[in-house]
Amino acid sequence: MKSGEPDETWPGMARTPEPPYYAVIFTSMRSAGDKGYDSAAARMEELAAQQPGFLGIESARSPGGLGITVSYWSDLASISGWKANLEHRSAQETGRRVWYADYRIRISHVQRAYGKASSALGA
Amino acid sequence: MKSGEPDETWPGMARTPEPPYYAVIFTSMRSAGDKGYDSAAARMEELAAQQPGFLGIESARSPGGLGITVSYWSDLASISGWKANLEHRSAQETGRRVWYADYRIRISHVQRAYGKASSALGA
Repeated sequence: MKSGEPDETWPGMARTPEPPYYAVIFTSMRSAGDKGYDSAAARMEELAAQQPGFLGIESARSPGGLGITVSYWSDLASISGWKANLEHRSAQETGRRVWYADYRIRISHVQRAYGKASSALGA
Repeated sequence: MKSGEPDETWPGMARTPEPPYYAVIFTSMRSAGDKGYDSAAARMEELAAQQPGFLGIESARSPGGLGITVSYWSDLASISGWKANLEHRSAQETGRRVWYADYRIRISHVQRAYGKASSALGA
């Protein structure tokens, strides 16, 4: 990470290394009611951060609307490992059955990244 | 897009074609106050959708917290074209100066995608 970048001020923003790395873009619509979702989501963020190859995670949900969580990983093997984690698999199953009216997962390869401090340079 | 996918029910979720394509992941922390942001953000979504190569856009912001907007594009040239759009350039400049305390932009290549309907198949 370049010195002088202001990311450290904002704990919700991931402090990823220079690309290349991978991003898993998880877009979802919740079903009604909590049904244990909030605590499970917090636990999954905690558990993801302990996995090999984890680089960071960012999450946002508009009230009553779309949620987007992006997790960053060093390689595809790390993403497969996290998908296969037993506790995570149980949460995935509950997600399909209970928490999410719909969702979509996209696996992508991050090629370039720039921030507020560096964008004026024409990156 | 596969038939039988339930995405049409949820207007906030992008209906993208099968990969490969590109995703621009825009993560941001707003500064305080609207300062014309909401109307400009709506205008930028409208304008983006008119650009060549645009495939879709998804956006979420937690109250008082992180915002994530992911736009999908057919190729890198389309992303460069949108970045260079004059009206968009003006909004980018106001974003840097006024609307965003911090932000980060990641350009990524989407390699795989699956949804609630297809995820049970082990994708």
